[in-house]
Amino acid sequence: MRGIKLVAIFRVKMECVEEAKAVFEALIEPTRKEKGCIEYELFQDESDPASFAFIEEWATAEDLANHRKSEHLMRARENMNSFTVEKISSTYSLIK
Amino acid sequence: MRGIKLVAIFRVKMECVEEAKAVFEALIEPTRKEKGCIEYELFQDESDPASFAFIEEWATAEDLANHRKSEHLMRARENMNSFTVEKISSTYSLIK
Repeated sequence: MRGIKLVAIFRVKMECVEEAKAVFEALIEPTRKEKGCIEYELFQDESDPASFAFIEEWATAEDLANHRKSEHLMRARENMNSFTVEKISSTYSLIK
Repeated sequence: MRGIKLVAIFRVKMECVEEAKAVFEALIEPTRKEKGCIEYELFQDESDPASFAFIEEWATAEDLANHRKSEHLMRARENMNSFTVEKISSTYSLIK
């Protein structure tokens, strides 16, 4: 049994790409230090620079819930709301 | 410089979940043997069993292009077209 996989795709306003990138990047170091964080990587869509993806893995649902309440994420969320056009986020369990 | 990340999310017809799972699972072993395949994992959405995700990583764009032309994927695609309601697929480069 592996952890919980999470994929979060953010499409942001074209004029906010650099701002969004900075806000997303700033989340990485503090999040990787969180309890239960197995993987937390930030990607940019090769054909659409205004689309970003986080691919994450968390040891338990509780660890993910704690991450969602973390101070750094709460703070980033205020900015994220201002530049995000669309967000697709789901948690996944590994089949194979 | 890491490889190319690919996330492909498939939402399938509710009545085809088991069929889709079998078709997707059958792709794993032959794909992992392909040249340049770094990662190829299949997931199921925890809140929507009719939604699946492949998270992949390929060494080069050429390896990914070859995968897309592979016999096992070409064959699976015929079935996939019959049960897939929505497909979201993008390639990503790692920021951090």
